[in-house]
Amino acid sequence: MTNTAILTIGSELLCGDGLDTNSAWLSRRLEGLGCSVRLHLSCLDAEEDIVAGLATASALASIVIVTGGLGPTVDDLTRAAVARYLGDSLVTDEGELAHIEALFARFSRTMTPNNRSQAERPESARPLRNEVGTAPGFVAEGPNGATIYSLPGVPREVYWMWDHHLAPELRERIGQRPRAERTFRTTGIGESTLAERLAGLEARPELEVRYSAEETLGTVRITLLADEQEVVQAAWLEAREIAGHHLSALGTDRLNEATVATLVAQGLTATTAESCTGGRVAAQLVEIAGASRVLGRGFVTYSNLSKTELVGVPAEVLQAHGAVSEEVARAMARGARAAGKSSLGLGITGIAGPGGGSEAKPVGTVHFAVAYGETEADVLHVLRVLPGTRDVVQIRAAAMGLHLIQRGAAALVSQRDS
Amino acid sequence: MTNTAILTIGSELLCGDGLDTNSAWLSRRLEGLGCSVRLHLSCLDAEEDIVAGLATASALASIVIVTGGLGPTVDDLTRAAVARYLGDSLVTDEGELAHIEALFARFSRTMTPNNRSQAERPESARPLRNEVGTAPGFVAEGPNGATIYSLPGVPREVYWMWDHHLAPELRERIGQRPRAERTFRTTGIGESTLAERLAGLEARPELEVRYSAEETLGTVRITLLADEQEVVQAAWLEAREIAGHHLSALGTDRLNEATVATLVAQGLTATTAESCTGGRVAAQLVEIAGASRVLGRGFVTYSNLSKTELVGVPAEVLQAHGAVSEEVARAMARGARAAGKSSLGLGITGIAGPGGGSEAKPVGTVHFAVAYGETEADVLHVLRVLPGTRDVVQIRAAAMGLHLIQRGAAALVSQRDS
Repeated sequence: MTNTAILTIGSELLCGDGLDTNSAWLSRRLEGLGCSVRLHLSCLDAEEDIVAGLATASALASIVIVTGGLGPTVDDLTRAAVARYLGDSLVTDEGELAHIEALFARFSRTMTPNNRSQAERPESARPLRNEVGTAPGFVAEGPNGATIYSLPGVPREVYWMWDHHLAPELRERIGQRPRAERTFRTTGIGESTLAERLAGLEARPELEVRYSAEETLGTVRITLLADEQEVVQAAWLEAREIAGHHLSALGTDRLNEATVATLVAQGLTATTAESCTGGRVAAQLVEIAGASRVLGRGFVTYSNLSKTELVGVPAEVLQAHGAVSEEVARAMARGARAAGKSSLGLGITGIAGPGGGSEAKPVGTVHFAVAYGETEADVLHVLRVLPGTRDVVQIRAAAMGLHLIQRGAAALVSQRDS
Repeated sequence: MTNTAILTIGSELLCGDGLDTNSAWLSRRLEGLGCSVRLHLSCLDAEEDIVAGLATASALASIVIVTGGLGPTVDDLTRAAVARYLGDSLVTDEGELAHIEALFARFSRTMTPNNRSQAERPESARPLRNEVGTAPGFVAEGPNGATIYSLPGVPREVYWMWDHHLAPELRERIGQRPRAERTFRTTGIGESTLAERLAGLEARPELEVRYSAEETLGTVRITLLADEQEVVQAAWLEAREIAGHHLSALGTDRLNEATVATLVAQGLTATTAESCTGGRVAAQLVEIAGASRVLGRGFVTYSNLSKTELVGVPAEVLQAHGAVSEEVARAMARGARAAGKSSLGLGITGIAGPGGGSEAKPVGTVHFAVAYGETEADVLHVLRVLPGTRDVVQIRAAAMGLHLIQRGAAALVSQRDS
């Protein structure tokens, strides 16, 4: 597999005010060509730092893409640094200079002497025409055989240069078949427990298993990779069995996309009644275009009174079992389903913390229930003690809530089919 | 100035699916201590790559922070790589092992043999206790004098480790006087418009003005920095005037924290009725501990029928003006306030896209209303056409909704006081 590295240059990337979106964008494209991205490196506009970055990148990768530092100011040192790394001098590229002059004329702008410096390139480099900005790129062969592409840093210029230069050149050069791949997500199971159960797959040398705990989604993403489609397919069939009902999304779908898709496919609707998640499940469903086909309304029932008034939880049940209890979650689920006249009703009630916990009901205790029919028997209940701070408990609870809607849909469909 | 470098480890950072938020977060803190951040480097969970990254980082910086790769799976190789770079062997830290065992017991979870490996550290390293996750960190001195901190990769664990270990240790080591600083946030005004209005402040050589568009919060964060407290204070008084009612949070408070704090301070309560934001405003309020004092219930009124049934929007008004209209937003706000018997009612209705737009009401059109009294005159209405994709429109609309609750509270208080 072709190893690649991305160097992004500019002090704005290091002060923490902006995120380096070019690296992520380029990485997706490089992986799409079947390359492996081994390194992202961001450094200051300082010659010494850029040279050190080029050396590290060239040691790990045969293709290095540099973005930024090609502007007209004295801060912009990428041209000089690449030349130094190559042992080249800088020359003015007359073709690019003429092009820059034409661009300035077209936009009726005055060209400053600084802008002339943008036509410079290391002597051994080949220029890469930029039609959407005044900084041309260039490409050169490094001392240890790595190919170094240097591009401007403005995102839309990066995208243009990729489409018009790098993508066609690299596609021809690599001519590699992309690896076979399958991605899925799980909910309600820890990364380490999952990894343990999938250890048999991980042990296979022909298969690569990647895990990514998605903290802000409350899911774990698993990717199976291999050179052969058959290897991935066989591993997927096993992984699907092992993940069982924790499997919550296929492909690159996120949990809310998968949930909406499941309901749409089965012609089902849902109504939510949320206490400790405060509307997060409904909001995640509504994030998906077309959510109106599955969700007409939702309730945020944070106070006890609202649980009674909005979704009909009897005051005696609240009194007898407390707001955070299986009985209340079940009543919320049934009440939400009835209030929304929907196929499914979801109830979530728990203690997100940091206060409010007790020995019997510690912080993180959350009761989930999904009602998929008329009777008390048509309710699925799950109790979890979710670890983490308040926001993490809420994120995880919302993910479990979405997942429980899927499980409720499956129960309803299997009941309908039997 | 102390040079620092940040290494983030994990294949998920390189495949382009996620952005490296840890580097940005840590960079802001390091700059806050008066350090210079010279390098960000992300590499795969591969021993050779991590070792190469450590060498590059240690050449440029005297403090190196590594995040990630401390999990329990075979993918997690940071412990081994740092040990190799230091020329150390790995040892099990008995104190950390006991702590991990206690954490698992507390959450009634089964500890897998994999989790034992999380108690390992390079022999010469000092462990850093992690109270919010199962991966302890460690710190060691590198062969060329750089101090290497190794932290878990989960963002909230990074934040905790920074607050409890790195911040105090580095503050003492660097001993530099931090610069005077004041931070605030604005909502409902673009970054460039704001920058234009604050241009007079930016022009002062003794003052630094930093902007950060917080895409996922729908706010702009502004930080004023100077060596002298007086300079910052004078600039703040002017900036506050210029920002006017767009000012939405002070200090490092996020918009939802500021909104809850405002309501608590004034003894006010709110009820939400959300269409295109689907419960996002309520969920953001409930994110804050103590939200029960300000929010008892909320409505997700996504369908027309639910707007009528839950918050009493007359069917004729929906018919006459359409669901996305000033009239409907106002009726939702008044209906929510009445249904919740609260001081304030919020109504949000709009077109988040990608479909559903028209020439008269393009995608991004959102009507907001906050009711702060009995009569139609006690309703504040705002119309915005928000740019962006569906999720961005929803994020921005939720931010405007939170902000409008603050403006409604201010209107109510000024009415009450007059």
